[in-house]
Amino acid sequence: MSARRFEEEHHPFGAAVARLIHQFAMLPGIGRKTAERLAHHILSCPAEEAAALAEAIREVKATIRQCQTCFNLTDQEECEICRDPRRDKTIVCVVETPKDVTVLERASEFGGTYHVLGGRISPLDGIGPEKLTINQLVRRVKRDSVKEIIMATNPTLEGDGTALFLSNVLEGTGVNMTRLARGIATGSVLEFANKEMLADALRGRQKF
Amino acid sequence: MSARRFEEEHHPFGAAVARLIHQFAMLPGIGRKTAERLAHHILSCPAEEAAALAEAIREVKATIRQCQTCFNLTDQEECEICRDPRRDKTIVCVVETPKDVTVLERASEFGGTYHVLGGRISPLDGIGPEKLTINQLVRRVKRDSVKEIIMATNPTLEGDGTALFLSNVLEGTGVNMTRLARGIATGSVLEFANKEMLADALRGRQKF
Repeated sequence: MSARRFEEEHHPFGAAVARLIHQFAMLPGIGRKTAERLAHHILSCPAEEAAALAEAIREVKATIRQCQTCFNLTDQEECEICRDPRRDKTIVCVVETPKDVTVLERASEFGGTYHVLGGRISPLDGIGPEKLTINQLVRRVKRDSVKEIIMATNPTLEGDGTALFLSNVLEGTGVNMTRLARGIATGSVLEFANKEMLADALRGRQKF
Repeated sequence: MSARRFEEEHHPFGAAVARLIHQFAMLPGIGRKTAERLAHHILSCPAEEAAALAEAIREVKATIRQCQTCFNLTDQEECEICRDPRRDKTIVCVVETPKDVTVLERASEFGGTYHVLGGRISPLDGIGPEKLTINQLVRRVKRDSVKEIIMATNPTLEGDGTALFLSNVLEGTGVNMTRLARGIATGSVLEFANKEMLADALRGRQKF
């Protein structure tokens, strides 16, 4: 409703500029002021630069789809990680979103493969287990004789709940289930750690 | 050079995503991290929303051009302000960019018209007076019997220099030349005003 009003807002340069500001302002973290600044940049930049941005947006939506094995994003049938013969297909790290894959890959620590759930179970938002790729994960576990599932859902109430649900579903398949270690974050300060973090760190203490 | 390297950077989701991140990162104030976040939003948002953004960018470049009178931006022959019969065509406020027009219009204080120079004289950047719309302003002053020119270039060395150059060019046309008042900014604190601001404020002191 408020977005509609916004779109109809008048701009002295014409309706096209008002629409562009509106579209920019729909992007996450982009407020009205920034949207105006970006629109002014588009107005003043070379035509080729603007065309390249528009084309890049179109191309991404036209070519990027879900990997048919792990539901990560890719421009091919299977994603780069599933296609890689060096990656261990019997170890599967379960994450909520494709972005989580990118983040974990940056650590260069993991030699297995991933499974992207497409979100987390959240009854309040109307997201039940049937909206996630849980059935596909179960099939994959059986087909590829997966040995270990690493739960890497977010350390939130809903992420933990989703992991718990998954562990119930996978019980009886014989797969080993682990989850990411919890504790104090490297580079942080004890003083600012909250109760839950410190409890996790104490429970999971390791031999020095 | 560094932009080129950046574009060739690898992204696990494919080259299209790398290109989109690169294009977003070329926008002013958008760093690598924000560009990635925006690209992930485009990947996950509805296809229509992404198409609307791409189309808005294309449409703006296709339909917006310079007003033939004042070089403000418009989707018609003349801009909204020049077309408005209530605006006084004998008072012309000279600004550097179309954005300055939007900013000044927001104050709703001015009933005259504008002239957009298209920048400021800056020998170091290779911008001489011939690259600005100075000749067009001189013609306009004669044609429309302009009575007053308000210099509203930025209060910088180059903005002031451009205003000085203009005042020399327009000498002898009989037009009245003024400039925006300078002093302390409403809502600011004297403690944080710099030397130049305070000197301007003292020189321009008004009767209480």
